Formats: sequence, C-alpha cells, structure tokens
Amino acid sequence: MKITRLHKTERMSKVVIHNDTIYLCGQVGSGNNITEQTTTMLEKVDALLAEVDCDKSRILTSTIWLSDMSNFAEMNLVWDAWIDPQNPPARACGEARLATEALLVEIIVTAAKN
Amino acid sequence: MKITRLHKTERMSKVVIHNDTIYLCGQVGSGNNITEQTTTMLEKVDALLAEVDCDKSRILTSTIWLSDMSNFAEMNLVWDAWIDPQNPPARACGEARLATEALLVEIIVTAAKN
Amino acid sequence: MKITRLHKTERMSKVVIHNDTIYLCGQVGSGNNITEQTTTMLEKVDALLAEVDCDKSRILTSTIWLSDMSNFAEMNLVWDAWIDPQNPPARACGEARLATEALLVEIIVTAAKN
Repeated sequence: MKITRLHKTERMSKVVIHNDTIYLCGQVGSGNNITEQTTTMLEKVDALLAEVDCDKSRILTSTIWLSDMSNFAEMNLVWDAWIDPQNPPARACGEARLATEALLVEIIVTAAKN
Repeated sequence: MKITRLHKTERMSKVVIHNDTIYLCGQVGSGNNITEQTTTMLEKVDALLAEVDCDKSRILTSTIWLSDMSNFAEMNLVWDAWIDPQNPPARACGEARLATEALLVEIIVTAAKN
Repeated sequence: MKITRLHKTERMSKVVIHNDTIYLCGQVGSGNNITEQTTTMLEKVDALLAEVDCDKSRILTSTIWLSDMSNFAEMNLVWDAWIDPQNPPARACGEARLATEALLVEIIVTAAKN
C-alpha cells in the first residue's frame, strides 16, 4: 500500500509508485518541431524510468496528445524507433492543445515496477 | 510482476496485462456515423476482452474521445445499451480529434483480470 | 480480485475499486467561471474519496481537461492550493471540449486505497 513520490513540486509529482505500478506525470519535450519534441520527450521518459530502476520495456500503457494531429506520422516515426519492439505498450493518441502554444506533443506513461 | 502483451505490432500492443489489470490500446470502430462506429468499436472491446477470458462486466474505467461532442447523445445511446447494467465502469468523455478525419470515436479501456 | 462499484447509474459508476486502486469517473464542477468550477469539482473529488475512507493525500495520478487552455493559470491557482503539498499526484492537463458548453474543466482521478 506504500506510495512513493519523486520530484515533488507545489503542483505535482513527476513520478508516483504504488505497489507495482509507476505513474509518470505528463512529459513534454523541447525543440521547434515534432521530431525534436518527441525525441526529447521520450528521453525524459527514459530518464525518469531509469531513476526508479525501470525502463521502456516495462511500459504498460501510454496516452499521447498532439496539439495538431497533422504531426501524427512524424511523431510515430520517432515513437516506432524508440519503443522496445519486443515489449510495445498499449497506446492511444488524440489531439489536444497543450499548456503552451509551443508544445506539440505530451505523453502520459504508466509502467510496471521491476 | 509478469507482463503479458498480445497483438504486438511495431507500434503498440493491443492488450497488456500486468498482475490483475488489463490495459487495451485505444479502440476505434468502422462505419460512416457515430452509431455504427460506437457499435463496432465496442464489439472490438468485447472481442479483445474475450481473448483474455474477461468481459465487459469487469471493465474498471474507460476514457471516450469524440471527434465532435455533438455526437455525445448518440454515442451514449449505444454505450448505455452495451454496458453491463450491474457493473458499469467509471467513465470520462471529452472531445479530441483522432488519428484520421473519418474517426468519430475512440475508447481507452482498463479492466480487471478474472 | 474483487471489484466494488459505488453510485451506479445506467451509464457509469462514480467510483470503482479494484484491489488497492480507486478509479473515479470524470468529475466536473458548477459555477460560471473556472475558479468556481475547479473549486466545486475538487470538492466532489474530496467527497467521493471520503466515502471510501480515502483522501486527496492518496491520489496517484490525475488527468485534467480544460475546455479552453486560457484557463490554465486560474485552474492551477485552485489546484495548487488544494493538493496535499506532501503528497502531490502525477498530473497531465490538456484541452478538450466537454459534455456541455458550460463545462470548463473536468478531472479524472486514480487513487490508492487506504
């Protein structure tokens, strides 16, 4: 029943672990185009999971928000190359404007603890 | 801690099972209107759950995305008739454009293993 | 493996408990502006969690939908004052039109049972 929270701010925790399940807060990237933002966003997912001795092979499900669905194909190119091909997560992708106009993509990740 | 993944593609798994929890990837339907798409979408949910010896009476929560919220009432007619009245899931529904313009509705389902 | 469902309607359950995890259906508030709606929405979260002997200190993750992202800062003022500062949840916030035009904000909450 223990809950562990990492990278706590006044607004959220970046990582919350409950029993065997890891919840990441919405991750966004940096850069001026969808390829750069998706790449850096997924690097942040990698880094957060690594902190809790986990990795992308243990992602259970993810929700991806694109600020403009016209970026779907380019986002997928980065995603498809990034995921563990032996262990792809469940996924859904929809269009949603994000916290700032500059943000093109955000991901919500749920993973399994090692 | 075991994770089972079914219907793996180069992009995602359609079904991921972790301990007692089942995660389905976003399901969409086919057809030219919201009634047809919701009906066929929920048939796909039924089929995926059946593959893992589960059914709609064990759905825990679901998120529904409509590409146009004006389809809310018609989607609900199909949904209300479909769910197990003894075991309705938690639910949220919001508007989000989907992967293609033709898609009117998508659902993300989390269920409990038998 | 037991599932408990509270406040069942013909469409959904407001609360679903599976093992140690609590899923709330999408909660919305009332009032004519984002501050009022966020405040009353979070009061409803408090009330539902209290019914199952839980509270906001045990929220694991939440997804917030704003009908207009221009309300982000005002929503956050209410959110930041509401959360348990020792136990902030993971969070993501995106823009999505909601079931009716009057609705400005909706939240999906996952919490840990006591």
